[in-house]
Amino acid sequence: MRKGEITRNAILDRAVRLASQVGLSGLTIGRLADELELSKSGLFAHFQSKETLQVQVLGRASHMFVQLVVRPALAAPRGEPRIRAIFDRWIEWTRKAELPGGCLFVTAAAELDDRPGPARDRLVELQREWMDFIATVVKTGISEGHLREDLDVDQFAHDLYSVMLGYHHADRLLRDPRAQSRARSAFESLLSAARREPRRRTA
Amino acid sequence: MRKGEITRNAILDRAVRLASQVGLSGLTIGRLADELELSKSGLFAHFQSKETLQVQVLGRASHMFVQLVVRPALAAPRGEPRIRAIFDRWIEWTRKAELPGGCLFVTAAAELDDRPGPARDRLVELQREWMDFIATVVKTGISEGHLREDLDVDQFAHDLYSVMLGYHHADRLLRDPRAQSRARSAFESLLSAARREPRRRTA
Repeated sequence: MRKGEITRNAILDRAVRLASQVGLSGLTIGRLADELELSKSGLFAHFQSKETLQVQVLGRASHMFVQLVVRPALAAPRGEPRIRAIFDRWIEWTRKAELPGGCLFVTAAAELDDRPGPARDRLVELQREWMDFIATVVKTGISEGHLREDLDVDQFAHDLYSVMLGYHHADRLLRDPRAQSRARSAFESLLSAARREPRRRTA
Repeated sequence: MRKGEITRNAILDRAVRLASQVGLSGLTIGRLADELELSKSGLFAHFQSKETLQVQVLGRASHMFVQLVVRPALAAPRGEPRIRAIFDRWIEWTRKAELPGGCLFVTAAAELDDRPGPARDRLVELQREWMDFIATVVKTGISEGHLREDLDVDQFAHDLYSVMLGYHHADRLLRDPRAQSRARSAFESLLSAARREPRRRTA
């Protein structure tokens, strides 16, 4: 990596942390300059505008997520173990990434859903990629024979995302000490319903 | 109702709608005054501070939610029909309340989770009340014999909340046309797993 890139990434790492607390809209170049004790003009040279900064912060957060969740999950065996690795890494990712305000993607989703523009577009793209990744891994659960063949893998990805949103809400807003055990229980139910073993239909 | 109260509620109705789009932090007295074409000093006389305004907006949104979701749900028969009524009304509530930016409580949760103060306290109180209400209704599902006796009703409330957060995310951010059918499918799975009929354990 060139020196400029190293500097830029170090700045973005701090920006991701700050944005997890104050939101993407709270992340101005001025505020970031104060936080980093750098000159505002120096940061402008790196990022040109608040919008460019937002888009790059999302990209950097995604890079962290790939390092902390996606790569380790891909190291797990295909099928159910890999799905479990996704869950285990995902639920820990903000702690490992040292994001004081919890998941930046959750915060950004609530902020950007009504704000068209490049940051929203980038976020939607990243979220869709992630849902597709989960669906692909769930497919390996079918091909390995762990999960039922008629499983709707996109529904599974949607449901797993819901479990993580519920976890974030219980943990960050309600400070519910059972947040993680609730999420784990929801995940086990989801997986149980997706398994191959035949069971009596109740509906 | 006194005339002052009627005026205040009319102002708060508009404020709830605006906040659903711009967030609670975007809802300044100045911006609301512009929106309503009222004087800023007149609004200050009603609400004194942005913080008071935020707390009252949450209270007003809760009043709308009670009218549109809680009361109609209580009119449904106890047990499963009432749980279904909660789901059906809840998923439609932002449309019925004409909230252009979706559920204010979801937006506010992401905004306030790291901001201690009266608005956060009020939001947490409202969310806990709502979870407790769901758990109480789910208990009627057990006493009516619709749901299993060993069901963890607080887990059910948590999981139902997760389903609605997933719906909001898919609908508002991803503009997924299947958002509602995904949520309905997740709800049916949740209910199916909670039913009384014995079924083969898969885990």
